[in-house]
Amino acid sequence: MTAQPVLINGKWRASSGADSFQATNPATKEQLSEVYPVSPWSEIEEALTAAATAFKTVRSFSGSRFADFLEAYAAEIELRIDEIVEAAHQETAYPISPRLKDGEMVRTLDQLRQAANSARSETWTLPTIDTKTNIRSMLGPIGPVAVFGPNNFPLAFNSISGGDFAAAIAAGNPVIAKGHSSHPRTTQLFAEAAQNACETTGMPDGFIQLIYRTSHEDGAKLVSHPLLGASGYTGSRHAGLVLKEAADKGGNPIYLELSSINPVFILPGALTERSAEIVDEFSASCLMGTGQFCTNPGLVVVKAGEQAESFIAAVAEKFSNAPAGTLLGEGVERSLRAGIVAIQRTGAHIVTGNQPVDGDRCCYANTLLRATGKSFLEDPAGHQSEAFGNASLIVVAETDEEMLRIAEHLEGNLTGCIYSATDNSDDALYDKIGEELLQHVGRLLNDKMPTGVAVSRAMNHGGPYPATGHPGFTAVGIPASLRRFGTLDCYDNVREHRLPTALQNNNPHDDLYRDIDGTMTIDDIA
Amino acid sequence: MTAQPVLINGKWRASSGADSFQATNPATKEQLSEVYPVSPWSEIEEALTAAATAFKTVRSFSGSRFADFLEAYAAEIELRIDEIVEAAHQETAYPISPRLKDGEMVRTLDQLRQAANSARSETWTLPTIDTKTNIRSMLGPIGPVAVFGPNNFPLAFNSISGGDFAAAIAAGNPVIAKGHSSHPRTTQLFAEAAQNACETTGMPDGFIQLIYRTSHEDGAKLVSHPLLGASGYTGSRHAGLVLKEAADKGGNPIYLELSSINPVFILPGALTERSAEIVDEFSASCLMGTGQFCTNPGLVVVKAGEQAESFIAAVAEKFSNAPAGTLLGEGVERSLRAGIVAIQRTGAHIVTGNQPVDGDRCCYANTLLRATGKSFLEDPAGHQSEAFGNASLIVVAETDEEMLRIAEHLEGNLTGCIYSATDNSDDALYDKIGEELLQHVGRLLNDKMPTGVAVSRAMNHGGPYPATGHPGFTAVGIPASLRRFGTLDCYDNVREHRLPTALQNNNPHDDLYRDIDGTMTIDDIA
Repeated sequence: MTAQPVLINGKWRASSGADSFQATNPATKEQLSEVYPVSPWSEIEEALTAAATAFKTVRSFSGSRFADFLEAYAAEIELRIDEIVEAAHQETAYPISPRLKDGEMVRTLDQLRQAANSARSETWTLPTIDTKTNIRSMLGPIGPVAVFGPNNFPLAFNSISGGDFAAAIAAGNPVIAKGHSSHPRTTQLFAEAAQNACETTGMPDGFIQLIYRTSHEDGAKLVSHPLLGASGYTGSRHAGLVLKEAADKGGNPIYLELSSINPVFILPGALTERSAEIVDEFSASCLMGTGQFCTNPGLVVVKAGEQAESFIAAVAEKFSNAPAGTLLGEGVERSLRAGIVAIQRTGAHIVTGNQPVDGDRCCYANTLLRATGKSFLEDPAGHQSEAFGNASLIVVAETDEEMLRIAEHLEGNLTGCIYSATDNSDDALYDKIGEELLQHVGRLLNDKMPTGVAVSRAMNHGGPYPATGHPGFTAVGIPASLRRFGTLDCYDNVREHRLPTALQNNNPHDDLYRDIDGTMTIDDIA
Repeated sequence: MTAQPVLINGKWRASSGADSFQATNPATKEQLSEVYPVSPWSEIEEALTAAATAFKTVRSFSGSRFADFLEAYAAEIELRIDEIVEAAHQETAYPISPRLKDGEMVRTLDQLRQAANSARSETWTLPTIDTKTNIRSMLGPIGPVAVFGPNNFPLAFNSISGGDFAAAIAAGNPVIAKGHSSHPRTTQLFAEAAQNACETTGMPDGFIQLIYRTSHEDGAKLVSHPLLGASGYTGSRHAGLVLKEAADKGGNPIYLELSSINPVFILPGALTERSAEIVDEFSASCLMGTGQFCTNPGLVVVKAGEQAESFIAAVAEKFSNAPAGTLLGEGVERSLRAGIVAIQRTGAHIVTGNQPVDGDRCCYANTLLRATGKSFLEDPAGHQSEAFGNASLIVVAETDEEMLRIAEHLEGNLTGCIYSATDNSDDALYDKIGEELLQHVGRLLNDKMPTGVAVSRAMNHGGPYPATGHPGFTAVGIPASLRRFGTLDCYDNVREHRLPTALQNNNPHDDLYRDIDGTMTIDDIA
């Protein structure tokens, strides 16, 4: 059977690779019919050269050109919504409604259009002008970006339609997308729409390109290549750190979103006040999408006592009554089971679950574990083993002090939540745990679960290592996410007609704030 | 002889290290009398623990506390100016006036006070508020910072008084300073002043600490340590990349300022129009401070012809007539000579210099080399060998096209300059070379030499790898340089009284711009 084509240098064409693969429907464990190629290094090198050539063309384009492309692309996607969500449904087993069509697809289109707005107004570039010295600086495009998409968001984080893609493009960079092998058809449909949009908006060949899979070795060569500007990666910690090492050696920035168990601290007053509500919120957050969210709450800390026991019993009942959702693949099921085993090895006990459910599809019972605070502090790393999917660990601490010690021993995470009494009676404990928790997370939440990640300009979907590779950047939130794909360009005494328009005396946009001698303003320079 | 004390955890005390070293006066090649210790790992580990403890105390301090410290420190320095510049003069052979007292010292005090202003107003934190979702974010301190100072700026880039120090402190972080071994006494005097300021402003023990030297292995352990937040390093490429590899493995950000040869393109119209002026500017820039600037112009590109020959002859005359300045040490002299040899190996010719001058001090003749564009393009890396000091290479290109090709083959640099005719008659060539050069430099200059690095909010003292480790950050320029030492902290639905004041509804400062729903404003939230 002929393998599906790759998109290299503006053309859909047969891959030169000898190997191929097929995706599987996780709901039936049946292979899907399309065959996809594994791209050899020569093909990736061609893509790199084409991207570097495209960059030479687009690096002088104004932001509005990238905005035009992103908007045309969103419109092309809208013509194919049913086809795309059907493909994603086949490849991920996520329900078409509400998850794919009403959730992810809406978010995907919104992200592309928010990125277009930022590209057009150039707000992401932070223009800074010192009129006394005539030094002017702003962020400019970093060069071709490789985007490695994850398995768990086939639309909103897809390598050729998701957050990293939109950010890299809006910042003015060509993208080489490496699709996730679990949803190649979905990715291909997006790429077809994107290439159409390239053609209708006059973007050069090689501006966007797609391969479906390559060897780990060639992935490492790609991220470290001198022709590449930067990379964005969302996925497993192990594979991400291999890429990080290669990129670091090559001196190329790489933005990673790796593992996170998203600790939730429920302070005693909150548990006394509204245990039933928190049981509902936690169970829903943990089991939603079969727990396959980067921000899934995988660790809950409560203080020992009757309230804690009732809480655990109520969550266990929710977990055992809820149907076990379908997982994204057999690999995900295996690694979930391995994660549970790793947590059990620390001495944690199973409260419910931890058993196979249905051999015809990829799934595993909703699993709740418990451990003591003492046990956690004896082996913090073991208790923080990631069990990606519908499983969570509740740690029961003996004292307030032990809760704080647990916070001190957390690895870097994307999020951390604290539930406290509405009358602020938990505030003394909150002050200690909140300050500590903030050092270990990118986003600190009060009284809500971490699974909603709004595309807000104030969002941080990032955090300390090893949740990500650099704690100063976010993968979600526009315009901040664009800044990952920029270099600081400084113009010293450069004649005005040679400056980018955003740094000329007249402000080219109504909505572009510039730092002029320390004042943020949309005014022109007199 | 007893070694000088180190500053660990708020106390000046004897080092536990067995090894020691002495600095040398480069003007006489005589060892200076004070003996300084080489700190063993146990001492660095103590410093790390103390810094982490200090961080727990200061991380809830408002910006004004750090501003108070920085201002008190500047005042303490002012009481010791003569002593400090005398020590620096002994250790570096830089003249007290104008270099040390009227130049670097003024800059050092100005930087500390600019950093204090930024810390107080919190402008560096980029507060961003989304009122609809109640998500709020800003940059917060990253944790203890290790600062490795270079040899060539004993005051303004000193590990405990310079740009990285000021930025790390203003961002709210403790600093562990690793002084440069060539000027330990200068560094010690600064540290005494800094520790006094700590005490008078109530900063905790371990907020600032000083060691003078350690093994390369222990330096690598320091930058990769989990208790460290980040590092700043200015120095040689080789040592910097060893630290980068270690820091990258540990997941700690490290900001490097490495080698740069700062290419200068002189377009034909400019050479016709004002050759004599450019000869003066170039010779002065290249020989100033015996060429020991990160932004020293080490590579000049001109187009072949009579004008180019006259230019080279005039520069050669300036070089041979100017006295050879004193270099910072025998190591600097050796590496300058090795750099010249590396450039010669490519086939470049000596125009003038390349000989020993005076055996009683560290120095080498002002050296000018020349090569053809063809030769450059055959071995771009060889021609870009850094010869740090009073040496430069002029490349004579045959055609405009060859000039552009040379620009395409440049490594990452801090700066790149283009001189062009004032009547804009060089603009066609400028457009090509300027766009290309911008991809290889952090700061693009017109019609001026790169050696002035103003402490301007629009400055970029940074650039693409291998000039630095990340092209999005600057080491000079406030508040931007502070952002290297920040993490993005996001607060999602956090109760208002628990937020940092910069994110509460009322703006705590008159001069703090906040992004509220996309509008930059100093207003409160209604």
